[in-house]
Amino acid sequence: MWQYQAPLRDMRFVLEHWLQAPASWAESPAFAEVDLPLALQVLEEAARFSSGVLAPLNASGDRQGCRWQAGEVRTPDGFAAAYRTYVEGGWPALACAPEHGGQGLPQVLDAALQEMLYASNHAFSMYTGIAHGAYLCLQAHAPQALRERYLPAIVSGEILPTMCLTEPQAGSDVGLLRCRAELQDDGSYHLTGSKLFISGGEHDLTDDILHLVLARLPDAPAGTRGISLFLVPKRLDDGSRNAVRCDGIEHKMGIRGSATCSLSFDGAQGWLIGEANHGLAALFVMMNSARLHVGLQGLGHAEAAWQNAADYARERRQMRAPARPEGVAAAPADPIHYHPAMRLALLRLRAVSQGLRAIGYWGAHLLDQAEYAALESERQRAARLAGLLTPVIKAFFTDQGFHLASEALQVFGGYGYTAEYAIEQTLRDSRIAMIYEGSNEIQANDLLLRKVLGDGGAALDELLAVFEQEVAAGGEYADSLKKLCANVQGLVKGIFANAESDSEYPYRIAGDFLHLLGWVLLAFAWARSSRLAAPLLVEDPWYQEKLDSAGFFFTYLLPETELRIARIEAARAPLAFLA
Amino acid sequence: MWQYQAPLRDMRFVLEHWLQAPASWAESPAFAEVDLPLALQVLEEAARFSSGVLAPLNASGDRQGCRWQAGEVRTPDGFAAAYRTYVEGGWPALACAPEHGGQGLPQVLDAALQEMLYASNHAFSMYTGIAHGAYLCLQAHAPQALRERYLPAIVSGEILPTMCLTEPQAGSDVGLLRCRAELQDDGSYHLTGSKLFISGGEHDLTDDILHLVLARLPDAPAGTRGISLFLVPKRLDDGSRNAVRCDGIEHKMGIRGSATCSLSFDGAQGWLIGEANHGLAALFVMMNSARLHVGLQGLGHAEAAWQNAADYARERRQMRAPARPEGVAAAPADPIHYHPAMRLALLRLRAVSQGLRAIGYWGAHLLDQAEYAALESERQRAARLAGLLTPVIKAFFTDQGFHLASEALQVFGGYGYTAEYAIEQTLRDSRIAMIYEGSNEIQANDLLLRKVLGDGGAALDELLAVFEQEVAAGGEYADSLKKLCANVQGLVKGIFANAESDSEYPYRIAGDFLHLLGWVLLAFAWARSSRLAAPLLVEDPWYQEKLDSAGFFFTYLLPETELRIARIEAARAPLAFLA
Repeated sequence: MWQYQAPLRDMRFVLEHWLQAPASWAESPAFAEVDLPLALQVLEEAARFSSGVLAPLNASGDRQGCRWQAGEVRTPDGFAAAYRTYVEGGWPALACAPEHGGQGLPQVLDAALQEMLYASNHAFSMYTGIAHGAYLCLQAHAPQALRERYLPAIVSGEILPTMCLTEPQAGSDVGLLRCRAELQDDGSYHLTGSKLFISGGEHDLTDDILHLVLARLPDAPAGTRGISLFLVPKRLDDGSRNAVRCDGIEHKMGIRGSATCSLSFDGAQGWLIGEANHGLAALFVMMNSARLHVGLQGLGHAEAAWQNAADYARERRQMRAPARPEGVAAAPADPIHYHPAMRLALLRLRAVSQGLRAIGYWGAHLLDQAEYAALESERQRAARLAGLLTPVIKAFFTDQGFHLASEALQVFGGYGYTAEYAIEQTLRDSRIAMIYEGSNEIQANDLLLRKVLGDGGAALDELLAVFEQEVAAGGEYADSLKKLCANVQGLVKGIFANAESDSEYPYRIAGDFLHLLGWVLLAFAWARSSRLAAPLLVEDPWYQEKLDSAGFFFTYLLPETELRIARIEAARAPLAFLA
Repeated sequence: MWQYQAPLRDMRFVLEHWLQAPASWAESPAFAEVDLPLALQVLEEAARFSSGVLAPLNASGDRQGCRWQAGEVRTPDGFAAAYRTYVEGGWPALACAPEHGGQGLPQVLDAALQEMLYASNHAFSMYTGIAHGAYLCLQAHAPQALRERYLPAIVSGEILPTMCLTEPQAGSDVGLLRCRAELQDDGSYHLTGSKLFISGGEHDLTDDILHLVLARLPDAPAGTRGISLFLVPKRLDDGSRNAVRCDGIEHKMGIRGSATCSLSFDGAQGWLIGEANHGLAALFVMMNSARLHVGLQGLGHAEAAWQNAADYARERRQMRAPARPEGVAAAPADPIHYHPAMRLALLRLRAVSQGLRAIGYWGAHLLDQAEYAALESERQRAARLAGLLTPVIKAFFTDQGFHLASEALQVFGGYGYTAEYAIEQTLRDSRIAMIYEGSNEIQANDLLLRKVLGDGGAALDELLAVFEQEVAAGGEYADSLKKLCANVQGLVKGIFANAESDSEYPYRIAGDFLHLLGWVLLAFAWARSSRLAAPLLVEDPWYQEKLDSAGFFFTYLLPETELRIARIEAARAPLAFLA
């Protein structure tokens, strides 16, 4: 019943018109050979893989889940074969450097690929999703011998990496971790300790697994300044098993086809990555990429929710609606998408998911520009903007993914609550993304405390300048966007002022500020989409949908910003402690 | 890990002070023997049963689920024994009439009982929850012989009833149902057809099951005016099986211990209840009670979510908070409820769940008054108010139950996503209540179209008059409540005016109007709680929490009303149809 078709038409609109990515690629030597036809060909192949191979395993993987026995993990039937197809398709190599066997394509294409993978099968894509971040981290910080040994294996898909951060007592607070590492005579380290919630910590997709592990050296200072990063393979060079053991897997609300492992390191051999006690800095290089990925999970769930709800609403007839589209004759019962409550839900699903796509791909495009733009000043500006957008993409997108999955489920009525339609799986799967890779509360603090207050509002001003460029370009919603920007500017001024006398204030409003910025970004996305779509409509009626969605956004969804502004104002009042 | 303790202290506050129910009971001959000590004794026993017997079966029942084989259903281990304890405790009889063996206690006490049952084990309480509504329906509409045969069996718990409305093609649109009934020579009927999503349609808790079935007579008009209600027992008088068969059970997102059955009626013998073709009218008598019940599920989930999240937040330490309660020394890591984002979530959980309790019990108290108040005019007024509150209680409470379960899950971080802490079960279980017993969209239409616009705003004026009485009584938040009422009055005037020229408008705003009224009711609940608690604080520091929550509500939660008002205004714009 549940199905997924990659929204190639909208992806093309975002790449070609909204981002004007091909023009940007043409200017950059790294992507000199990348053009729109090539990009579309890559996306078409990715669409075939995600819709044809992964989507059919989504519900069955959830039903079967993973099985743990005596330290070994079996993934659901079909996952290992799908992984072989994934590897044969060259997908792990997409955005990796040619020198390691990669295809050297832009990250924005990888973002579109990831959206498809997560939308069609979130659980499967947990195994593959971490690889690019680990690749970036090792590329930047691993000693040459390890780079040569492991980067080609990641790029070819021969090996899958993990991220081993969390311990039972150390979740959001990584500074509390206790896993320890002791230097050996040969320059390697022995790691000892327990890690929790390790996605893909053990599985049967690859023979070897590469753990990136945070641990403490014996003389390390307490807290986050005493954490180092280590590379710990499942197999040693002679093919024997390293002293890493999977003690069990979690029984979870969702992503049941993904093995979430408890790992014991019992003197496991590992190697230092980056500098001692600077493990978090070594991870920093992958953080934007990893958080963007999680945001794309939210986008993927929103898209899958929209598609499935719209399909169902077109088939299902119940009661007469108070109005019908022009020219449609009355029937004993109308398709439920004529009913205003369902129309509201469906138009919201469409407008938000497509708006998120533009913003999410922009985030990825900025990561490309931060690396490859011609001028240093452009690269720095892109990096600052990407840093500002990243927590919004991670948290706002995943909140929306969950809430939209719930709206879609409601469209299905009682059927939506049954496993048969699998929209309830989308809801369950989507919920984790609000928690991991830095909970959405952590993202909100990162955004307001570090990225806005921390730099005196400079990056935010750069973002507002982008919005003002859009306002200057005109279009039907330029005035609405302008007014919204002015409101945000006034509000931020107030936040700066109030934070001086009440240092807890930013923490109380961080979540609302992040959501406000999320809605403002969607307003930007739709103002721009509408302006760009209007002249294209003459040639192609497909663009009418864009104009409809923009209109819906600026009437029906803009009030969401009022709630957030009202809450930010209200939070000037002190907040009681719990007894 | 997951636990539930009935919030007896707050229940007492609502009954004794907020509702002043004992004074109301004293005035009514039907409840002459009911006083506060008796009520509290009943609630204490119910608390022992729900916390001691049902709560321990909640997670295990979810894990095990129901098993179907060859038409028979086995409920999870422990459910049958728990049901015997429930029957021995006399709980089915609580609010039934003494003439049928009932205890004749007020429905408001039954509401408190139901809150505990649903909070401690929603799945189990699906089997028992429908009984009182079926009792009311048969009491009002069944012929005497059937009343004598079945009412005492329902009251004793010997038999459990079901409601058989939904068919595959007829969900929200009951008018599409096809199940047919043919008159036999002996005055009984033979029923033929399929029913879907029948809670407790088959199980092993009782030997007999009493199906209340909607079906059509051969000459019945199409649509809702051709539907009749029938009583179809699982067992005939000679003990043999009637021609009703359970074809399977649903695999669902939640309430997995509740058997959701597909039933086939293959010439099953049944008896007409009420008049032919007036089956929906016969059900009407139980509708307020059934919808109130579902609202109490939302309250129960919110309460369980609050308790479990608060317990966890007191234990779990992560990072230093930006501020601590006065006198608390700094530590390497603070309890997470010191962190503003968690405090916001927890204070919201507490304020909303306790506010819902006051409003939910008020709804039940109004049902009592509608039946037993001394004056006919009082009874009519109570019935009108109950009719107005019912859709809000059903839909607003269940939306809150789900969203608060999600907020609570977030407090647990990664642990919340695992089955181990079972807060994810609360989230899954809570989701169904937004769908069944009339989806929340149906409730919203019922509220605005029928209960407000349909009577020219008379019932709403009566509700606002209650709020104005509260305003007149003074208290810290009287002015806020007054302002809010004035806003609502102005808004409603605009809704009436706009509905005249745009007949679809009310349908577009029905959901937001229902949520607005929900938040206004919570404002009333907290204004009144604060006014009543203030003088009691001198004697008992427990009331400080009430003042804290009221303060939190009127600063931090009141902005929710602004979103709803803004959306109601925005929806004057036309709403596109989906292509």
